[in-house]
Amino acid sequence: MNPEHRELRAQLEAQARQAKSASVKLRGLSSKVKDEALELMARALVERTPEILEANERDLQTGRGRGLSEAMLDRLKLSFSRIEAMAQGCREVRALADPVGQVVQGWTRPNGLRIENVRAPLGVVSIIYESRPNVTVDAAILCLKSGNATILRGGSEAFHSNTVLCEIISDAATQAGAPQGAIQMVHTTDRAATTILAQMSGLIDLIVPRGGNALKKSLLEVATVPIIFAAGGVCHMFLDASAPCAEAVELVFNAKVQRPSTCNALETLLVHRDAAPQVLGPVCERLLAAGVELRGDNRARAMFEMSEATAEDWDAEYNELILSIAVVDDLEAALEHIEQHGTGHSEAIVTRDYASAEAFLNGVDAAAVYANASTRFTDGYEFGLGAEIGISTQKLHARGPLGLEALTTNKFIVRGDNHLRQ
Amino acid sequence: MNPEHRELRAQLEAQARQAKSASVKLRGLSSKVKDEALELMARALVERTPEILEANERDLQTGRGRGLSEAMLDRLKLSFSRIEAMAQGCREVRALADPVGQVVQGWTRPNGLRIENVRAPLGVVSIIYESRPNVTVDAAILCLKSGNATILRGGSEAFHSNTVLCEIISDAATQAGAPQGAIQMVHTTDRAATTILAQMSGLIDLIVPRGGNALKKSLLEVATVPIIFAAGGVCHMFLDASAPCAEAVELVFNAKVQRPSTCNALETLLVHRDAAPQVLGPVCERLLAAGVELRGDNRARAMFEMSEATAEDWDAEYNELILSIAVVDDLEAALEHIEQHGTGHSEAIVTRDYASAEAFLNGVDAAAVYANASTRFTDGYEFGLGAEIGISTQKLHARGPLGLEALTTNKFIVRGDNHLRQ
Repeated sequence: MNPEHRELRAQLEAQARQAKSASVKLRGLSSKVKDEALELMARALVERTPEILEANERDLQTGRGRGLSEAMLDRLKLSFSRIEAMAQGCREVRALADPVGQVVQGWTRPNGLRIENVRAPLGVVSIIYESRPNVTVDAAILCLKSGNATILRGGSEAFHSNTVLCEIISDAATQAGAPQGAIQMVHTTDRAATTILAQMSGLIDLIVPRGGNALKKSLLEVATVPIIFAAGGVCHMFLDASAPCAEAVELVFNAKVQRPSTCNALETLLVHRDAAPQVLGPVCERLLAAGVELRGDNRARAMFEMSEATAEDWDAEYNELILSIAVVDDLEAALEHIEQHGTGHSEAIVTRDYASAEAFLNGVDAAAVYANASTRFTDGYEFGLGAEIGISTQKLHARGPLGLEALTTNKFIVRGDNHLRQ
Repeated sequence: MNPEHRELRAQLEAQARQAKSASVKLRGLSSKVKDEALELMARALVERTPEILEANERDLQTGRGRGLSEAMLDRLKLSFSRIEAMAQGCREVRALADPVGQVVQGWTRPNGLRIENVRAPLGVVSIIYESRPNVTVDAAILCLKSGNATILRGGSEAFHSNTVLCEIISDAATQAGAPQGAIQMVHTTDRAATTILAQMSGLIDLIVPRGGNALKKSLLEVATVPIIFAAGGVCHMFLDASAPCAEAVELVFNAKVQRPSTCNALETLLVHRDAAPQVLGPVCERLLAAGVELRGDNRARAMFEMSEATAEDWDAEYNELILSIAVVDDLEAALEHIEQHGTGHSEAIVTRDYASAEAFLNGVDAAAVYANASTRFTDGYEFGLGAEIGISTQKLHARGPLGLEALTTNKFIVRGDNHLRQ
């Protein structure tokens, strides 16, 4: 640790200790108070819109000065409607069921001991994210609803916007009765802050990084605090021998083209050799018309003109309008390809055959497996979880779209009548 | 990495790759085959008892030569009845419900998409443990029942016993139809093996260390593979103002004395100042008669003769017949003491008062919280989970006694009718 970071470390530890104290009070905070806080936040965001836009304009000016791309500036930019959407987000989270205190299971033992397994807040959750300022509000409200204290660490480009947003929602929370320090942000753009936070085990219970792979990798290397992170998605769709042509065209098109930058978008198409002669042509034509670059194996290239896929293509998460295509002998070959190249995110089969669908759904090891639906549905809102912290591809704690429950732990509550162990 | 460890690393990687391939087949293995394997294991353990005892005798001889303590030798020693107990363990795990494929939740979205959240095996699980050879069987059968491949890494003292036990159960598993490599052990006593295993992320999905704090700490420092570990238990019992005297005496005695070496045994007693004059004397007399050393704060020492507790005592996990005792002003003071000194394991209140019980059960953040029962019940068998891999005090994935479910992940299965995302 750099000596000039001692002060930063001391400051962050003081914040984390305040968050820890707040978390003790948050643990017992009623849903009523939390929901009141969310309502006050929604109102304050709208009322204080001019302040938010002013701070945002400072960030935009700095960003233009630093030569940020138009796409980056657009992600950074706030507007009346984007702030209105944040307020709406508060009301949506308000409407969700409070996960704290939910009895997951309960039973009575033969000796009369009454056991319940109940959801409880994790404690202190730190969210580390990049340029979109709306994540400040999203992350804070999900943590509050699940009874956790939050330490937010946003991107430097949005520093002024985040500062005002955090102040507004933090004020609203304390006004409703939440403890001081329940919602905090890191008041520096120094990159060392991320490393320091990641090593505060004992004070911080979980870190959720929302950002690119570089951020996640750097965190994993140094962290002692548990992390839930979303790895990339190399998602596959397998067109089985019995895949209906017109439907297959629409499903592939939707999975690849509807929003290619997302982790649940299609990257590799696998086509059963018996279906390829009828299906491959129409699928490729539809994709080409939308500007998708096609890269195939030899069998695919023998049926439709496209460039040659290299070994790297089968592991590539393009996140843009490129699709790799392989023709495979059968379902087993498709399963093997996915086992080898998949990242455990979202995998789909298109088939009319019952046995193929079942074999695929049960045989593939991924966060989400689909029969006859687009991989693009892997999403907290689309799954009906109401809100989403991210999509996990790790196997422990929570896998797939992460709802409020992922921000809780469990606790056994045991009631006895002076029970002694034999 | 030491250059002489290259060969060891290559050998362990080959084992892990074999385990990974086996895990793909185990994923779809029916409960019937797994249960048949458990039955064959039980029979083979009994049939091959002479072989096991012979290997065990070699370990005992080596252990005596190395000057192991009698207690260590006793933990290491196998007998007809201990082997019979292992066989019985196989039949008990056989009788448990298979967690794989259990539908945890399921619903249909407004657009007709049918979503299920289903339990699935983790993949490859490595169990690292110390001298008791029965853990070899316990760990392997829990992993097999939950559809995981296992890499066992036992203590060097039990090397020959573990080798024979692993061979017997692995043979029985393949005989029943489990894939080759489903149950493996590390064939070296080199300590570097543990570090190498802990860094095999991508091949190993979870490591469960069953052993002392030194093992856990060394693993946490180097691991890239997720770990579920059990931290120590500094467990408290709070005698509330209304605690009935005779029952309090029995509860404290049971929690402290019934088996003091366990993580769920009592370490610190907190007594409400209004109860102390009546309760403290009888409690202390009963404990003293059992040879418990008492260490108190000034208020406790003013009521009963005992040595003075130092600052360290409040954070000590004695694991022997020592108890620290503090008199506190009220329930809030007890909650604060537990918040500050507890390790989140097991905490109990003894009270006749409804409001005190509820405030304690909801206010304490621990894996298990009790009203009017001994902390000694925190245990997979006592909770009715049927089997136990350990007791987790971490908050992510699983907290408290870990049953078969803790060895599974979840997976979303989504069935559609050619659903496209809007």
